[in-house]
Amino acid sequence: VTDVKGVDEVANKGEYAHFMLKEIYEQPETLARTLSHYLDLSEMRVDMPDGLDFSEIDRVIIVACGTAFIAGMVAKYMFEQIAAIPVDIDIASEFRYRDPVLSPKSLMIVVSQSGETADTLAALRYAKQHGLTTAALVNVMTSTMAREADIAMPIKAGPEIGVASTKAFTSQTCALAALAVGAAFQTGRIDDNAAATHCRDLASLPQRVTEALSSDTIIAKTAKGLVTARSAFFLGRGAMVPIALEGALKLKEISYIHAEGYAAGELKHGPIALIEDGTPVIVIAPDDALYEKTVSNLQEVAARGARVILFTDPKGAAAAKSLSDDIVVLPEATPLTAPIVQAIGQQLLAYYTAVELGTDVDQPRNLAKSVTVE
Amino acid sequence: VTDVKGVDEVANKGEYAHFMLKEIYEQPETLARTLSHYLDLSEMRVDMPDGLDFSEIDRVIIVACGTAFIAGMVAKYMFEQIAAIPVDIDIASEFRYRDPVLSPKSLMIVVSQSGETADTLAALRYAKQHGLTTAALVNVMTSTMAREADIAMPIKAGPEIGVASTKAFTSQTCALAALAVGAAFQTGRIDDNAAATHCRDLASLPQRVTEALSSDTIIAKTAKGLVTARSAFFLGRGAMVPIALEGALKLKEISYIHAEGYAAGELKHGPIALIEDGTPVIVIAPDDALYEKTVSNLQEVAARGARVILFTDPKGAAAAKSLSDDIVVLPEATPLTAPIVQAIGQQLLAYYTAVELGTDVDQPRNLAKSVTVE
Repeated sequence: VTDVKGVDEVANKGEYAHFMLKEIYEQPETLARTLSHYLDLSEMRVDMPDGLDFSEIDRVIIVACGTAFIAGMVAKYMFEQIAAIPVDIDIASEFRYRDPVLSPKSLMIVVSQSGETADTLAALRYAKQHGLTTAALVNVMTSTMAREADIAMPIKAGPEIGVASTKAFTSQTCALAALAVGAAFQTGRIDDNAAATHCRDLASLPQRVTEALSSDTIIAKTAKGLVTARSAFFLGRGAMVPIALEGALKLKEISYIHAEGYAAGELKHGPIALIEDGTPVIVIAPDDALYEKTVSNLQEVAARGARVILFTDPKGAAAAKSLSDDIVVLPEATPLTAPIVQAIGQQLLAYYTAVELGTDVDQPRNLAKSVTVE
Repeated sequence: VTDVKGVDEVANKGEYAHFMLKEIYEQPETLARTLSHYLDLSEMRVDMPDGLDFSEIDRVIIVACGTAFIAGMVAKYMFEQIAAIPVDIDIASEFRYRDPVLSPKSLMIVVSQSGETADTLAALRYAKQHGLTTAALVNVMTSTMAREADIAMPIKAGPEIGVASTKAFTSQTCALAALAVGAAFQTGRIDDNAAATHCRDLASLPQRVTEALSSDTIIAKTAKGLVTARSAFFLGRGAMVPIALEGALKLKEISYIHAEGYAAGELKHGPIALIEDGTPVIVIAPDDALYEKTVSNLQEVAARGARVILFTDPKGAAAAKSLSDDIVVLPEATPLTAPIVQAIGQQLLAYYTAVELGTDVDQPRNLAKSVTVE
């Protein structure tokens, strides 16, 4: 934490009203740094970290807290879909207390911006004691986790000052996506052509994120509709479930609105009881294989009076037409890049809602940047 | 669903104001029925369902929706701790869309009160297509899931009329606990003495639940303090995490208060920002190995002005003393029985809060008893 603190004192917001906004806008650049670390962009292949070999691994266990845990949730989809390697994800404060059944052939990846999160560090030590190979994905390479893990992997996001994580989250997700592609190649699940296609896809992220940031004004306008809300729900399916959770977490952290993310299909099993006239429901549904199903959940909440805000892409917007009160159109993306593109929308929505409400965006109440006690 | 509907028309609340209360009070009896189906109470051993052999199984995958999913979360702790069999749990509406990496040596257990839940049924069919052994834990043995699964397992809870599940949840959890003990014995992880000890423990459930129900009056009084709340948080650690989620789900469903359950250790990674003066925080912490850690989270929220309601057991209450605004003391229990004992407290809390608020307890708005569309 020390070196982040050091930077905190000298860091400069520049033209931005808050560090959080500056860090949101830095993402085309921070993602480019992450990508240039994990990809060989001339050969269009993944540069795997030294010592990381997925061909010997039976299972990946990702352990983290808060936003980093959500990055792990996104990565589970990627590893399973691209590399067909099963992934368990665990909340660090729960992991070691539940007597997990561990195989020494499993790889544990801990994810932590600071590299000092107490529960995550304890999980890393527990896995080491149980003979697992361990890798730490961190922003601070001088951190305890980077020192103690078998393999230390940087996210290259640069110092993050805003307490609500933005650029660290997208760089964590991007690094894990690159590792999933590399793992699929190492295990022979994809050939070098397919790997190159995925790498080109990932390499498009800075451009896609730049385009996503151009929705800034429309999202700021949309956020005005949230300021009177006491509750808000965020829905998605597939890899948009973690993005819905991230949208809710960001809004909670800085606007203090009770926001909750849900797998859209779970709605009817309880939470739909809370939907009443005007309840904001943010639906995250780019035009993918699950789009129709998510839109049918959108219609269910709309029929019960919810004020629906749809985050989608151009095709999804064309199909949705008048179904939603507000539509935010983010750039078209792929299964690998859509979670990051859609996360940008959620960061901006939370940011502008908090600004409207006048909260302390960079230092929300009760929260610390890194949680170094259990 | 047909036969439950048939019963619905003739079912009688008797002396109870609502079916939900009647069903809460039936639990000593419904649990006794579940137990007598899964245990041989004279020999004190588990009567495993025909065809269910965990010695050939590499992994259990539990798939369900809503409250049944939460029963699966509890079961994960039990299978891993007692039988050392790894368990994946999945939300049914997500499961088949995420390209899960499946082993044909895995067992899928679907859990559904009605046996007709559309997403859960689709997951069952998906697993069958992929060559997994399938088992369905249902309340309605004439249901589609019971017919289609390789192994049909009843919970014996009798018709459940209240939309918010109570007795089905505890019977699902109880049946899964018995299966975990049986699995541990089948795989040689425990001997017949240890199995008998666990069976005696489970056999104590009706008595423990009867004692838990005697907290009815104090919980009804505690519930009065929730009626003005717009938001409430439920915290637990270990197997009390799912019970915190269940407490929040029940409160949501019938009182329409935005309640959210959390692993207590995740609090500092975001949600604590929402805690302000008077925010109700329900902490579920019997005196177990995690008690001290949960109580330290309790103190964190109390220091920020939360109105804390602690659900614990006699030892936990003695240790907590003046730390909490309200303390509800439920009977002492064991790792296998505590989740069910503590769930009773959460059911009563949600019930009495809804009664105070005057909502339609048995038919909450927007909700159907079984969700037979995706």
